[in-house]
Amino acid sequence: MKFSFKNDYSEGCHPNILEALVRYNLIQQPGYSEDEYSLKAKKLIKEKIKNDTSEIYFISGGTQANLIVISSILKPYQCVISASTGHILNNETGAIEATGHKILSIETENGKLTPEDIVPVLENHTNIPHQVMPKLVYISNSTELGTIYHKNELEKLSRFCKENKLYLFMDGARLGHALTSEINDVSLEDIAKLTDIFYLGGTKNGALLGEAVIINNTNLQEDFAFNIKQKGALLAKGRVLGIQFLELMQNDLYFKLSENANLQAMKIKKALQKKNVEFLSETFTNQIFPILDHQLIDLLAEKFEFYIWKKIDHHSSAVRLITSWNTDDQATDSFIEIIDNQL
Amino acid sequence: MKFSFKNDYSEGCHPNILEALVRYNLIQQPGYSEDEYSLKAKKLIKEKIKNDTSEIYFISGGTQANLIVISSILKPYQCVISASTGHILNNETGAIEATGHKILSIETENGKLTPEDIVPVLENHTNIPHQVMPKLVYISNSTELGTIYHKNELEKLSRFCKENKLYLFMDGARLGHALTSEINDVSLEDIAKLTDIFYLGGTKNGALLGEAVIINNTNLQEDFAFNIKQKGALLAKGRVLGIQFLELMQNDLYFKLSENANLQAMKIKKALQKKNVEFLSETFTNQIFPILDHQLIDLLAEKFEFYIWKKIDHHSSAVRLITSWNTDDQATDSFIEIIDNQL
Amino acid sequence: MKFSFKNDYSEGCHPNILEALVRYNLIQQPGYSEDEYSLKAKKLIKEKIKNDTSEIYFISGGTQANLIVISSILKPYQCVISASTGHILNNETGAIEATGHKILSIETENGKLTPEDIVPVLENHTNIPHQVMPKLVYISNSTELGTIYHKNELEKLSRFCKENKLYLFMDGARLGHALTSEINDVSLEDIAKLTDIFYLGGTKNGALLGEAVIINNTNLQEDFAFNIKQKGALLAKGRVLGIQFLELMQNDLYFKLSENANLQAMKIKKALQKKNVEFLSETFTNQIFPILDHQLIDLLAEKFEFYIWKKIDHHSSAVRLITSWNTDDQATDSFIEIIDNQL
Amino acid sequence: MKFSFKNDYSEGCHPNILEALVRYNLIQQPGYSEDEYSLKAKKLIKEKIKNDTSEIYFISGGTQANLIVISSILKPYQCVISASTGHILNNETGAIEATGHKILSIETENGKLTPEDIVPVLENHTNIPHQVMPKLVYISNSTELGTIYHKNELEKLSRFCKENKLYLFMDGARLGHALTSEINDVSLEDIAKLTDIFYLGGTKNGALLGEAVIINNTNLQEDFAFNIKQKGALLAKGRVLGIQFLELMQNDLYFKLSENANLQAMKIKKALQKKNVEFLSETFTNQIFPILDHQLIDLLAEKFEFYIWKKIDHHSSAVRLITSWNTDDQATDSFIEIIDNQL
Repeated sequence: MKFSFKNDYSEGCHPNILEALVRYNLIQQPGYSEDEYSLKAKKLIKEKIKNDTSEIYFISGGTQANLIVISSILKPYQCVISASTGHILNNETGAIEATGHKILSIETENGKLTPEDIVPVLENHTNIPHQVMPKLVYISNSTELGTIYHKNELEKLSRFCKENKLYLFMDGARLGHALTSEINDVSLEDIAKLTDIFYLGGTKNGALLGEAVIINNTNLQEDFAFNIKQKGALLAKGRVLGIQFLELMQNDLYFKLSENANLQAMKIKKALQKKNVEFLSETFTNQIFPILDHQLIDLLAEKFEFYIWKKIDHHSSAVRLITSWNTDDQATDSFIEIIDNQL
Repeated sequence: MKFSFKNDYSEGCHPNILEALVRYNLIQQPGYSEDEYSLKAKKLIKEKIKNDTSEIYFISGGTQANLIVISSILKPYQCVISASTGHILNNETGAIEATGHKILSIETENGKLTPEDIVPVLENHTNIPHQVMPKLVYISNSTELGTIYHKNELEKLSRFCKENKLYLFMDGARLGHALTSEINDVSLEDIAKLTDIFYLGGTKNGALLGEAVIINNTNLQEDFAFNIKQKGALLAKGRVLGIQFLELMQNDLYFKLSENANLQAMKIKKALQKKNVEFLSETFTNQIFPILDHQLIDLLAEKFEFYIWKKIDHHSSAVRLITSWNTDDQATDSFIEIIDNQL
Repeated sequence: MKFSFKNDYSEGCHPNILEALVRYNLIQQPGYSEDEYSLKAKKLIKEKIKNDTSEIYFISGGTQANLIVISSILKPYQCVISASTGHILNNETGAIEATGHKILSIETENGKLTPEDIVPVLENHTNIPHQVMPKLVYISNSTELGTIYHKNELEKLSRFCKENKLYLFMDGARLGHALTSEINDVSLEDIAKLTDIFYLGGTKNGALLGEAVIINNTNLQEDFAFNIKQKGALLAKGRVLGIQFLELMQNDLYFKLSENANLQAMKIKKALQKKNVEFLSETFTNQIFPILDHQLIDLLAEKFEFYIWKKIDHHSSAVRLITSWNTDDQATDSFIEIIDNQL
Repeated sequence: MKFSFKNDYSEGCHPNILEALVRYNLIQQPGYSEDEYSLKAKKLIKEKIKNDTSEIYFISGGTQANLIVISSILKPYQCVISASTGHILNNETGAIEATGHKILSIETENGKLTPEDIVPVLENHTNIPHQVMPKLVYISNSTELGTIYHKNELEKLSRFCKENKLYLFMDGARLGHALTSEINDVSLEDIAKLTDIFYLGGTKNGALLGEAVIINNTNLQEDFAFNIKQKGALLAKGRVLGIQFLELMQNDLYFKLSENANLQAMKIKKALQKKNVEFLSETFTNQIFPILDHQLIDLLAEKFEFYIWKKIDHHSSAVRLITSWNTDDQATDSFIEIIDNQL
């Protein structure tokens, strides 16, 4: 069996979660997220974000979270602004448009949006009522390119959105990896203050499934549960999501898991840098995009699975390596060994 | 703690499932239902329905299954026919209409649809193009009232649908309970022959979550996975669903679990019948609707949770009792003890 | 050629309208309802409803008006309440559901809704968030059965809606006929006060096409034009609608036209009543539903077109006769002549 | 009053149309496009396109036509490919996305799509089922930049679409102008052969309102009328559209009208070319985009209305001038006079 660096959802879940599922298994509980585990998990999250007025909802996956959030917030004629690399643009089978909303795409260098990126989009959408109305800014942290937002960047963007009556929504499928990156200066508390809505991704950080959607803007909280149910996303056994987030939040397991993923990716990164390998983008999370010679890629592919991300020239391509909460030294060391031998 | 007869999803899942989740937990697998457990589970289901041309997809819950199936099959102007008790009509927050499709409701005595029920609906929808076009017949087995379809009823309905170019879709959230009912004469194989599409419900029969959607009509199979993804229902860790159905299908665990649920409900039913208690409808599955005196209801409510379903007169109401895969003798015996003492 | 009593849109439009279209034809005007005729027509309507804060929009037809109004007002999980005879339920090819909203149908005797009809619907929709949320009450005046609302009925319904946070929307495809009925006691001003939104139908009252949507509730006015454009309903040559409503509003032509339609229907009604003919419902507008012997129906059908509405018994059926702004004495007299000769 | 070159829908309609509306006004006709004028107009169009198996439907406007066609043809997960200048992308308030379908945008030099443009889009959409499926190619002729497709270009594109199982849909809001352009080599017959579906625009070519949608691919014809009705686009008095297209088709009035519009635009173009004025794009239809000095623009703006299309540098901008079926020598001569005096 080859070891896979293709993504961070190749394994099951952290053993603590399975233990908790076993521990509580036969205790009867109310359905639809009214169980005591879900209630406790929500309480814990509120403590961590230090915002008692936020509302929290558990949803099975990222595409589901994105489509429910966006379709709940926007009026039919309002649209989303996203970096062209945004997960909602290219990787969700048009899930957002399927709810009726256009996404305006902005080219960026590193997957991050700035006020300067958004200004021309607003300027080009003033032909009322013949154009959609931009209303929600979608960002990912960490981004689909592995980069992260710094605190001053988020503050600027948040202020800009408020000034322009735009909602700021952060896709946090890999928020754990962003917040535990060695270059991060943002706290969970900051994010709860600076965004209208965001989510803490479980699926890509050690849960079997599940994202915790956190609505900070109280105007957007009303009746949100109706939207979850209507989209078929309200699990009868909501306990499955509640128990997982309870475990992840306790003792900061959530952050320890992403810390490990980041650490293992950075180990490979440093080994490659020592050999003067270049990267498609500079990242400090669990995604790295080294540019490798095709021969070396072929050799690595005999023992490892990963995506070839972008052809650079006749001799080399960028590959994408993703580490997970469960990637251990054995995997990364054997990868590095090949690098060290070959370069 | 009161024991709950409110529904069949109050507990977690059958222990075999948790053991399997632990067993396979750290083995890396491809995402999005391409894992080996999902593939094996699909193979097992195909063997059980004795139809190799059916396609099988795992989806998290019933509302999700209903909305994806219906919105995938129908053209925008086509609509659904359902008994007025249908789950899609009253218990899914308009999920079907939210995908653009009207549901025509038919009053029935027992939650089951017959060709005779449907004929007038077709006759009243001939003002082309000013009315929706009826195209899909939605039935539940067992129904929301606990009743089940007999083989000759299903055959008639299936033939009628074919003759009238209607699709027949069976909501099988409680299909296990129907097929293991003491009065059942239908096999899984029959259902695969007589319906265009149906599902095997896991959530209400011992799984943590999950329904297995089975598309028998090969014309309806094309590109179905796109629809699942677009509705946010394609789990990254599809293994979670695959492992569960693998366990449920092995050694017919699925049917043993619903058998227990039925058995426990029938035990209570017989105890009540001995005392000449009447029922709202005659059922042979895990849902019973006895009509009880309000004083007795109050007394039972001290030890048990259940829904008061329908007020009958000043003195009595029908209650709904649902047993599950995990309901044991202790629970039903203590319920029967009160009945025996009081009546 | 047979004379048609099938509907009130068999002819073109009142000659004044064509004259105005000719008169203004070659004058250049801005597009999209910014032309001076549209602005003047809106001003005139505001004067007539005596409410300067209402906003007015011209839309081509009734189904279009209904679907734009409803989909603009409601959030995805909110639904409509309508009498079972409502045009939106049976005659618009599921246009409302196609925008994502369920319609709850209420059986009525005469096509009119009362608070008493609505109370049980609200009581049956309290299982949050598993059911749609009733939010908008749709009524027609005159109704699809030709009946009309009296002032005290509208006042009660309006008060009830406000108390229950429901919007009241009046489909006025035949509002002219209601307001000029001999038994009417409601004014246009009353309607602007008692409803959140309503429309003045042009198509069934002497225009080529066009309905004037009037939004009285200022909370519902924001950005309405975006919805019109997004649904493809914003005519480039908005002047076509503006000129028509300008003509219809001037000198109360609108009401004179419906007065004629009502008068001609009442003439036939009285002739039939003299012969002791019974009616399916008692109406005082331009729709009548006499119950006639099949032989007589056949005889009338040789000279006139009309719909057979409902079979009553082996010998007789109710037919529907509709008169229009352009129906003249010659048509009704020749109809009455047959009646007089045969009965 | 300034003369407007802002668009081609500033005036009413060609007098012949009004005369016909008057002529047929009081003749009773069936509703919903079953009137004899609509039937005759459809027959005439079929003769002109020399294709008796095409089906024809009249719809009020371009956005309406685009959204009904696209939402009728595509399955939920299928998407549209369009040049970035496509009307559906920027000028229809997200009408297409509101029906659930994504539009993939392609940058072009001149508003026209080629197979070479489309190939990379197809190549980038192979990650099944995580991306939308490209299925319909939307083109405009003439384009939003005034350019037109040559026969060999259309043939190549049509062949490419067939080979790749893509539908080819031509927005013909200004098809008359394309077909009467001095450089055109395409016939109406060619278009009926090379596209799956297209429309003949009336609104921008002398009608009060109306587009004739022509479905050539017989697989796409089934039940189309349901879609029109469901979107609120089926006029009760369909005669209004039928009479207009009857007049436009008779004696080729339709083409004479666009010929005049083109002629007047070309007159201005030649006058500007004589003065060595440059243009944003080279066009031979009724839209021209000359690049003028700001001082001259200000001077012209005193007597004429037009859009400033794009700033070129500190001194000059491109303006858009559109002529119509009704633009006469007086208007263009007085424009040219200023040009001649100033340059």
